[in-house]
Amino acid sequence: MRKLFPDVTADQFPPGHPLRRCQGFIFDVDGVLCRGEEVIPGAPEAIARLRQGGKKVIFISNNSTKSRADYIAKFERLGIPATEDDLVLSTYATARYVAGESPGARVYLVGAPGLAAELVGAGLELVDDPFQAEYVVVGSAFDGSGRIREDNAHRITGALRALYHAGAKFIATNPDRIFPAKDGVIPGTGAVIGALSYMLDREPDAIIGKPSRYIVEIALSRLGLSPGDCAIVGDMDTDMLAGARLGMVRVFVRSGAMTEEKLRSLGIEPDFAFDSVLDILAWEGG
Amino acid sequence: MRKLFPDVTADQFPPGHPLRRCQGFIFDVDGVLCRGEEVIPGAPEAIARLRQGGKKVIFISNNSTKSRADYIAKFERLGIPATEDDLVLSTYATARYVAGESPGARVYLVGAPGLAAELVGAGLELVDDPFQAEYVVVGSAFDGSGRIREDNAHRITGALRALYHAGAKFIATNPDRIFPAKDGVIPGTGAVIGALSYMLDREPDAIIGKPSRYIVEIALSRLGLSPGDCAIVGDMDTDMLAGARLGMVRVFVRSGAMTEEKLRSLGIEPDFAFDSVLDILAWEGG
Repeated sequence: MRKLFPDVTADQFPPGHPLRRCQGFIFDVDGVLCRGEEVIPGAPEAIARLRQGGKKVIFISNNSTKSRADYIAKFERLGIPATEDDLVLSTYATARYVAGESPGARVYLVGAPGLAAELVGAGLELVDDPFQAEYVVVGSAFDGSGRIREDNAHRITGALRALYHAGAKFIATNPDRIFPAKDGVIPGTGAVIGALSYMLDREPDAIIGKPSRYIVEIALSRLGLSPGDCAIVGDMDTDMLAGARLGMVRVFVRSGAMTEEKLRSLGIEPDFAFDSVLDILAWEGG
Repeated sequence: MRKLFPDVTADQFPPGHPLRRCQGFIFDVDGVLCRGEEVIPGAPEAIARLRQGGKKVIFISNNSTKSRADYIAKFERLGIPATEDDLVLSTYATARYVAGESPGARVYLVGAPGLAAELVGAGLELVDDPFQAEYVVVGSAFDGSGRIREDNAHRITGALRALYHAGAKFIATNPDRIFPAKDGVIPGTGAVIGALSYMLDREPDAIIGKPSRYIVEIALSRLGLSPGDCAIVGDMDTDMLAGARLGMVRVFVRSGAMTEEKLRSLGIEPDFAFDSVLDILAWEGG
């Protein structure tokens, strides 16, 4: 039987608990709080107890197809209260990155409606003519069954033309290559990055999602805390790498896609490893 | 006014003519004999005179969407007589390569009907289920306007699954990245190679088209001549590189997409350079 702290408050993590000094927690979503639409047992309770204890909590995800509004509905289904301010998705982070670099810029998009919504919400102008584009923003161009989205069928070529003819900057939401799905793996944003990079012999100018520091820096600025006072909780090497780049406490959970053995075989040593998020609050030591 | 030989026969190129010793000529098509559907002036005459003189002539192309039957119709429009035996396209060469390695193999295809026709014609079995595939063969997945072909919308994912789950071999028709078109550049087979290579962190097991030696070796075996007795005539670095790999006489023509200056800036020195194919027969020396 898992033993939880009897009472968690900001300064009342059990004395000696290694996460006592962390004032903020950045949680990855898939594999940490849920698997797809299925909640990971104890995740809502863990988040609730951390918040009750005065800890600041924020959620980050490399998901490149959903807006924050989409994710609020998802979190409601999971039983975890969340507002737009609690969510830093790669869609939103990318929109904020581009708008920060060039407010109101003209953007040619390869990706889903959720990404388009965040770009427009950040005051950027979506253009259909690649020759008018100042930026090319790419997310995943595939639907959940692995088909290229109908509204994206001409957009690989459009993005190619914007980069080749119009000198647009090349920004990708996230570097993820493939995802597991029911009938086999499906392409991530990496398929689009790979197609354009090979054709143009050019890497993206920026990739915003983990393991890049951009998305984590946006989460930290939202928390208003310095990296050393925060933990990043994730199930993947990318989470741990992003945390390491910024000097955060790195907490690995074994509830996701990557085994701890695989993680360590990549030469990555997290500061802590737990079976699941609820175990962060199950402390046997002290 | 261009001066042509009064009479060209196999052993009666003008004495001293540097191409006198070449018994076979391998011609690239686009940029050498035509630009799209427009014939390059003098090309039909040059081919006719070489054939009259007893020279063996064969045509190669990296085109990944057309069958030899499609090209026979194209050559008819250009006014250059050609049979299936005179044509080595990357579609046909790829089919022959796979069938040579594994007769009757099950192939999952990304590409156009012309490629499918050559694969079936070589006795290979096209499969719709990626988990049944022994080979993945990729050509261009885009139509002439730059849209992904409707019948290819699910095939990037299918190819990914055949390679990732079923351990299929990965063969590409050609490595071309982009092509010029009326409204701007369009993707070549390179877009598909790039997408799959990035997702899987894996290069193709073989790329058949130029500058690979595979396609040229098939043309040479068709000619029945050794490389040193043959010239390759092309407008691109890839033609000259393929010729150099096999020890052929390399003839560059300035009628295509690449300038001679650009070619030489890449460190490639052709054996001969002419304005166009007819100039091969316009000899001032000797």
